Amino acid sequence: MPYGDGMSARTTRSEERRAEIVRAALEVIAERGYRGASLAAVAERVGLTQQGLLHHFPTKDALLVAVLEERDQWDAMPHSRWRIDLLCSLVEYNAMRPGIIQTFSALLGESVTEGHPARAYFTDRYRQVRATITAALRTEYGDRLPNGLTPERTAPLLVAVMDGLQYQWLLDPESVDMPGAFRDFLRLLGEEVD
Amino acid sequence: MPYGDGMSARTTRSEERRAEIVRAALEVIAERGYRGASLAAVAERVGLTQQGLLHHFPTKDALLVAVLEERDQWDAMPHSRWRIDLLCSLVEYNAMRPGIIQTFSALLGESVTEGHPARAYFTDRYRQVRATITAALRTEYGDRLPNGLTPERTAPLLVAVMDGLQYQWLLDPESVDMPGAFRDFLRLLGEEVD
Repeated sequence: MPYGDGMSARTTRSEERRAEIVRAALEVIAERGYRGASLAAVAERVGLTQQGLLHHFPTKDALLVAVLEERDQWDAMPHSRWRIDLLCSLVEYNAMRPGIIQTFSALLGESVTEGHPARAYFTDRYRQVRATITAALRTEYGDRLPNGLTPERTAPLLVAVMDGLQYQWLLDPESVDMPGAFRDFLRLLGEEVD
Repeated sequence: MPYGDGMSARTTRSEERRAEIVRAALEVIAERGYRGASLAAVAERVGLTQQGLLHHFPTKDALLVAVLEERDQWDAMPHSRWRIDLLCSLVEYNAMRPGIIQTFSALLGESVTEGHPARAYFTDRYRQVRATITAALRTEYGDRLPNGLTPERTAPLLVAVMDGLQYQWLLDPESVDMPGAFRDFLRLLGEEVD
């Protein structure tokens, strides 16, 4: 289909508008959490009526799904290319985008409450992340790390340190050197880190 | 003042009622988060009208303060008696009270959103906890742990692992052995753990 025909242009405009709404939703969730976020606040931020927003996302949960899919895209990396030292770069990158980390730290916190729409997402995501990290550790170290732990038992600790440091850093960025602390942890595992 | 006189009895009844309200608030926050919790839901759970509840706690934030004070009481231990191995027992104890851990994991998550009433509490609390753990590590190991890290640089990692494991465990208790993972981490630090 030739570029620039009526249908494609409409589709593109609609996609751009959706992306704009998702960005606004990320901000509103960072400020108020998901349960505290209203579609009206998101609509206002992008200059739409609530009715206009519902045209793009028929429910608040549909918008949440789009927000979580957006998150997955940032972290997307082929399974086979995962390496533990890349996590250092990820944590350094995270330290430059507090807004996004705030959004997902708030969502993770809420996800443990009853019937939260992001709960299944986070449960699945953590299973996948633990499996991916386990595989990367096994590629690097075999069945035991230098410190004696297996890859399976190291993976949840790695994930926990990343998440836990984010809360301390968001609350008190002056006191907590998140990338430095994460490098310290990798050294405990036996990684050679600069 | 003799026990059992009118004034004391009233005070005691009022204190009991306050404690009952705080317990109900802990439950409601675990289920809905703080922003999602309503005074009406807390009042209903203890068989009070909302007006009756306001007699004990004039605002929702006043009730939150009481909830956070309650939390501090559980963890209370004289600074000088803190020992790192006691953290193992704390994590094992936590694994037996998922409701409470859910309340505080939800509150921690929300606390990073804008203007949250628990933000200052958590910021201060983490500073204190890092300082207490640093002091305990120094008493045990001196200026360097067996792995080469200083007590100052170990403390935020210890806190991060505890918090991060709580989220993974709350989301997926079948897959995550929280006390076992925490013992693994203490071994990485050079602790002798059974």
